[in-house]
Amino acid sequence: MTAHDVDLFVIGGGSGGVRAARIAAGHGARVMMAEEYRVGGTCVIRGCVPKKLMVYAAHVRDEIADAAGYGWSVPPASFDWPTLIANKDREIARLEAAYTANATQAGARVVKSRAVFEDAHTLRLLAHGETVRAAHVLIATGAAPNHGPAIPGIEHVISSNEAFHLPELPRRIVIQGGGYIAVEFAGIFAGLGSEVTLVYRGDNILRGFDDDVRAHLRREMEMHGIAIRTGLTVNAVEKHGELFTSHLSDGSSLVTEQVMFAIGRHPNVANLGLEKAGVAVHGDFGGIVVDAFSRSSAPHIYAVGDVTNRVNLTPVAIREAHAFADSVFGGKPTRVDHDDIATAVFSQPEVGTCGLTEARARAKFARVDIYRSEFRPLKATLSGRDTRVLMKLVVDAESDRVLGCHIVGDDAGEIIQAVAIAIKMKATKADFDATMALHPSTAEELVTMRAPVARHVRDAAE
Amino acid sequence: MTAHDVDLFVIGGGSGGVRAARIAAGHGARVMMAEEYRVGGTCVIRGCVPKKLMVYAAHVRDEIADAAGYGWSVPPASFDWPTLIANKDREIARLEAAYTANATQAGARVVKSRAVFEDAHTLRLLAHGETVRAAHVLIATGAAPNHGPAIPGIEHVISSNEAFHLPELPRRIVIQGGGYIAVEFAGIFAGLGSEVTLVYRGDNILRGFDDDVRAHLRREMEMHGIAIRTGLTVNAVEKHGELFTSHLSDGSSLVTEQVMFAIGRHPNVANLGLEKAGVAVHGDFGGIVVDAFSRSSAPHIYAVGDVTNRVNLTPVAIREAHAFADSVFGGKPTRVDHDDIATAVFSQPEVGTCGLTEARARAKFARVDIYRSEFRPLKATLSGRDTRVLMKLVVDAESDRVLGCHIVGDDAGEIIQAVAIAIKMKATKADFDATMALHPSTAEELVTMRAPVARHVRDAAE
Repeated sequence: MTAHDVDLFVIGGGSGGVRAARIAAGHGARVMMAEEYRVGGTCVIRGCVPKKLMVYAAHVRDEIADAAGYGWSVPPASFDWPTLIANKDREIARLEAAYTANATQAGARVVKSRAVFEDAHTLRLLAHGETVRAAHVLIATGAAPNHGPAIPGIEHVISSNEAFHLPELPRRIVIQGGGYIAVEFAGIFAGLGSEVTLVYRGDNILRGFDDDVRAHLRREMEMHGIAIRTGLTVNAVEKHGELFTSHLSDGSSLVTEQVMFAIGRHPNVANLGLEKAGVAVHGDFGGIVVDAFSRSSAPHIYAVGDVTNRVNLTPVAIREAHAFADSVFGGKPTRVDHDDIATAVFSQPEVGTCGLTEARARAKFARVDIYRSEFRPLKATLSGRDTRVLMKLVVDAESDRVLGCHIVGDDAGEIIQAVAIAIKMKATKADFDATMALHPSTAEELVTMRAPVARHVRDAAE
Repeated sequence: MTAHDVDLFVIGGGSGGVRAARIAAGHGARVMMAEEYRVGGTCVIRGCVPKKLMVYAAHVRDEIADAAGYGWSVPPASFDWPTLIANKDREIARLEAAYTANATQAGARVVKSRAVFEDAHTLRLLAHGETVRAAHVLIATGAAPNHGPAIPGIEHVISSNEAFHLPELPRRIVIQGGGYIAVEFAGIFAGLGSEVTLVYRGDNILRGFDDDVRAHLRREMEMHGIAIRTGLTVNAVEKHGELFTSHLSDGSSLVTEQVMFAIGRHPNVANLGLEKAGVAVHGDFGGIVVDAFSRSSAPHIYAVGDVTNRVNLTPVAIREAHAFADSVFGGKPTRVDHDDIATAVFSQPEVGTCGLTEARARAKFARVDIYRSEFRPLKATLSGRDTRVLMKLVVDAESDRVLGCHIVGDDAGEIIQAVAIAIKMKATKADFDATMALHPSTAEELVTMRAPVARHVRDAAE
């Protein structure tokens, strides 16, 4: 080991990198972690955390409107975007310091620099030019928004990165994209008072999610005043003073104060010198090729998190990083199980989902029962809000196993996190039924759905 | 059967009675259900549902206060109690009609009358004097607030029944009691603007709940401005015009606009003619004695819900009623499992709990591990609210089974409903750990608590 300056060099100080640095250092490894921008990564700096803070802000308008039916008279409220951004930034700075402290207190050295491979064991810190010899390297550089093929005026288009730091709330905004980031920002801007048009080339938002969830959320978003235009793309963006005209593929156009694209993210693999290190990447989106232990094609180099383009979620990156550190430095080989991961979309209302969609279940299982309930949440009775909750269970009729659970409604994220424990345990519908309801709650519907709304039996010919 | 006018006579049109009437009628039984007051029972008319609606109203003040940190300026809001009560009453009337329709559409006959036993098979409807001969009888008369031993001025004291219909919001209120009803109303009145003093003879609120939950919620309630005075009783209440003076056992006194007691509820067994029917009651609180199939000491008479004083919760009454109807009229003998029932207290913040408290687990199991996390919820970062979430898992160290889960924080009720599925399946701590976190959420803490904060090993001598 003496030929190496460190036992582990971590490229990237996001959720995965910080966890790996901390745990490896705890196992006694000499660790250096290089971060070129801000410690905390996408999740903390310009992802999950600031996004959810902005979602809280976006709920206020509804909360106030709903209060009238409950006897409250609230005079017109006003919203100040710079206050939200400043307060959010203060909290993010606090978290960034906490993440840095997390790593350094465990004994890792944190350097503010971009790091690139010189050869398989040598990293160059571009900020000062130094090189560091490392026995092991972890690539945890994450991913970044990708705007797709260049269109005229693409330089006027912002991504979620910039959305967190706009100088003012746009009166109108076009958001292109149908994934969770596009949907969440549509809800944020609409809640804060922007006129929002979501443009998506597919047939409906949230591709890959259960079709009932997609249809339900779309209706709810439209009732919230968000214009959703599917089967369309933005082909060009023109700037006129402070305004932008987006030209759509059907020949129509939209004039707005901002244009945001959220159509995809690509792993950050460029200009890292991966070829010098013998690290292979996938052809299509360029994610680093890894095995079940997050080991790359170079045996002493590993990669975790979004840069591997497996399941691009913070907790997954953290678990992969933790497993890597335990495997390599803790003498405890650990794999991460990527099945049945609960996820949420912090739209308004929220989506919570775990396990298979109906479509995937029907493709995989011969007999699938669908339990579905749509109902008005209790709170909406007095508020008069026109909103419905969707709860859906996808069940393998042969084993009775609950293959998937899908929720649209307030608190869907909190509920699905706990449901995921049962699904991970291979819960059956009978297990759900055996659970006593908690009244009055939204989640009680999950344990009181008695009869399937549909039973799908695969044709023998299929 | 021809000697009987009906196959089933149900006394009481609450949650249990309505469910039994509906299911039995669905099985082909001729059913009559008598309700002396309003169909829907405690839960719908003056319990869970109106209570939770008032809790929603009580949250508005905090929502508005929290909005400032998120960039919102909201001018002073005002609250009008009569509007809330009128809107709530309209919703309750709608639900009452829905419950009646539920029963009648299934084929049951609903009569508005008190019904009492003349003999084991004969019921008298006091409203018109008619008698009805029944092959089977279900007693589902529920329970009612009990003020305990008469004290001077007890006639000035209201219960939760009256709290739902006060003409105006009391500026100040004394609530005696430490159970969930007292705690919930303390939160409702405080949230709506009353000055609330909770007086309880025990050492802390929520006897029977986990001690950490009790301490945590007490702190949170006190931070919400609720005065909690334990180890005391109200010994006398004096009326002076519109005001009441409560004299406490320590010699002090409190002047308020209302005095409410929520110190217990007793099963409604009086004046039903139970002795004529051979139906035995328990000595202490007078609940009807029943077996696992809800059968009383008279073989054709059954009882479900609060009148049996088993687990006094709406969903339990509903399941007991459903099981009774399936057992007696559906040819499908069914028992209700009363273990591991999730419950919530709709305090501010909420409590959600399922399974054993730490104290009970340590009394029952030799080695108990405690996992506990207290943290600031994400929303409180920008709002600046001084509040903490409590999450606690009680684990049998020998089997690794999660014996209990206890939560204090927003959405605790929704979360614990879903956790209950896993606990009912006898989830282990390893099952919790195997579940991927959902970030950012409150519930993710349940699956990321790595190390126990305490390990209790029972002394061999104990």
